[in-house]
Amino acid sequence: MLPDWVTRKCPEISVVHRDAAIARQAQLTKPTGALGRLEQLAIELAGLQATERPRAARVPIIIFAGDHGIVAQGVSAYPQAVTVAMMANFAAGGAAISVLARELGSSLEVVDAGTLAADAMPGVVTDKPRHGTRDFSSEPALTPAELAFAFEAGQRAVARAKANQPDILIFGEMGIGNTTTSAAIAAGLLGIGAEEIAGHGTGVDAAGRTHKARVIDAAIARHGVAGAAPEKTMCAVGGLEIAAISGAIIAAAQARIPVLIDGFIVSVAALAAARLNPSCQPFLLPSHQSAEQGHRLVLRALNVQPLISLDLRLGEGSGAAIALPLVRSACTLHNDMATFAQASVPDRPG
Amino acid sequence: MLPDWVTRKCPEISVVHRDAAIARQAQLTKPTGALGRLEQLAIELAGLQATERPRAARVPIIIFAGDHGIVAQGVSAYPQAVTVAMMANFAAGGAAISVLARELGSSLEVVDAGTLAADAMPGVVTDKPRHGTRDFSSEPALTPAELAFAFEAGQRAVARAKANQPDILIFGEMGIGNTTTSAAIAAGLLGIGAEEIAGHGTGVDAAGRTHKARVIDAAIARHGVAGAAPEKTMCAVGGLEIAAISGAIIAAAQARIPVLIDGFIVSVAALAAARLNPSCQPFLLPSHQSAEQGHRLVLRALNVQPLISLDLRLGEGSGAAIALPLVRSACTLHNDMATFAQASVPDRPG
Repeated sequence: MLPDWVTRKCPEISVVHRDAAIARQAQLTKPTGALGRLEQLAIELAGLQATERPRAARVPIIIFAGDHGIVAQGVSAYPQAVTVAMMANFAAGGAAISVLARELGSSLEVVDAGTLAADAMPGVVTDKPRHGTRDFSSEPALTPAELAFAFEAGQRAVARAKANQPDILIFGEMGIGNTTTSAAIAAGLLGIGAEEIAGHGTGVDAAGRTHKARVIDAAIARHGVAGAAPEKTMCAVGGLEIAAISGAIIAAAQARIPVLIDGFIVSVAALAAARLNPSCQPFLLPSHQSAEQGHRLVLRALNVQPLISLDLRLGEGSGAAIALPLVRSACTLHNDMATFAQASVPDRPG
Repeated sequence: MLPDWVTRKCPEISVVHRDAAIARQAQLTKPTGALGRLEQLAIELAGLQATERPRAARVPIIIFAGDHGIVAQGVSAYPQAVTVAMMANFAAGGAAISVLARELGSSLEVVDAGTLAADAMPGVVTDKPRHGTRDFSSEPALTPAELAFAFEAGQRAVARAKANQPDILIFGEMGIGNTTTSAAIAAGLLGIGAEEIAGHGTGVDAAGRTHKARVIDAAIARHGVAGAAPEKTMCAVGGLEIAAISGAIIAAAQARIPVLIDGFIVSVAALAAARLNPSCQPFLLPSHQSAEQGHRLVLRALNVQPLISLDLRLGEGSGAAIALPLVRSACTLHNDMATFAQASVPDRPG
């Protein structure tokens, strides 16, 4: 069983603040609507944050890493050892998300939510119920208790981040094999075949992708999770870092902190979160449309429109980090532009 | 006649630096291609700037403003006085581009390249051959000498900006009526009817757009500029700020400074620049796809793919400014990420 807090209701959007933001946008020195999606974004954030001045200044990034037993079935282009090596790279500052975090002035926390690392690593928070998931082609990836532990690990990470009063949170992931796990979760939740949702991941070829889809379809049949509830599906196929992100998303939304959703894997975690606790859905802010083919379907299921589509397929939270400046611009424009009255600019005739 | 420098050849892309950037991208700790368009952008910039470390740190913004005699024909939703009022708003810091410039740490220069302002304004560089263009529905908008002056005003602005060694330049525009002038230039250069290219501008309705298209088609027929050379077309329909931007783009490219191209109007100025001096074309970096319907056609003619498409339609250089952080991220990732060897991360099997 997942812990009780998972289904606790998230706060409502503040209609007063949203309406005030709509009114302000109409008074700024520009044709109404001329800032397009950025206007909607500022209005949405004002309602979510319940403020007259929507903010995207303090945006901590938390990466959850995990390993996947399914890698034994040859579903990834990279060796499994890359998961742990990349955790070290995040902490050492050399990975894409490390570079982006510095550029954005964001803190970066790395959580080992379930990798094969035997020992604690410098710069990494270890918070895992086991070392990697089981191979879901032959047995359930996780027990219910392990799944619950991962959700709580996500909640604990948000609790740590809350100390610095974040405006928005970004969650990222690392885990060789986790596009396979994510595709399996999405196929289960959406009740579709893996052929529709499995992509090339870090770079398997067409034959590799076909193999990946077959592995997923066989597992969904074996575990009987086509169209099943998120808890059952995630026990069947994993993964620990994905469950931690689902838990973190719900915990953030419950604390009125919007989450800028990264690519395919984080979007699948968000889909599971929204299925478990629909009241978190308004707090899911879109960032990018990834090159991973299943992402489009998951974004559609989440009913969000990405801000950018730049063929990114790296994960780590990098797509959300790359999109963050757009959210910042939306806030700054909303808060700092002059009104027609302040600037003595003639508005269009009524 | 336009001045001789307009057709002087721009520097070549540095193939050595471009190839070094391609090689570096393949060594960074990510699957090759996983940063999508941002990888291509870093590679392109390395070649254009002839450097191993592509840069987008110093990016001055220059706005050129002008008025348009064609406004007498009722083509705009806003009164003509807005052009000058917005120049004051740019200088006072209340406009969208002022807010964005502060956020980006960019200098903002406002050039009156041909507005109706009778006197010099504080914070505005006055560099104009006349006050507004003539109404092109009844006479040529500009004489050849006035057009040449505007190109030189663009070159002078770039010469001022060069003192601070810009990495990239952003040009913006302000001018009530200038989507009509731009649509007329584009219709002339592309040899198409105005119905295909005229949009809603700051917000005319469907009837207003039809009227705008009729005014443009009649003018193109009257002046005989369907498919004509840029110089002839721009004398026929204007405008002064657009010609200044064409001149500025060519001057920037000649100084090996890439230009982040804003929306519809700046893209039309870029199209004229590329027709006059095709060697400037590689220095045109795309930023956004605007909501103005003709923009798509002009971007296609320029052979560039926008980075973002957020229904922006404000002008002022705002779309380019909003996209700049993406270019900065591309550079920082390229320059600062660790390689597989540096981070001791296993690469995929060869």
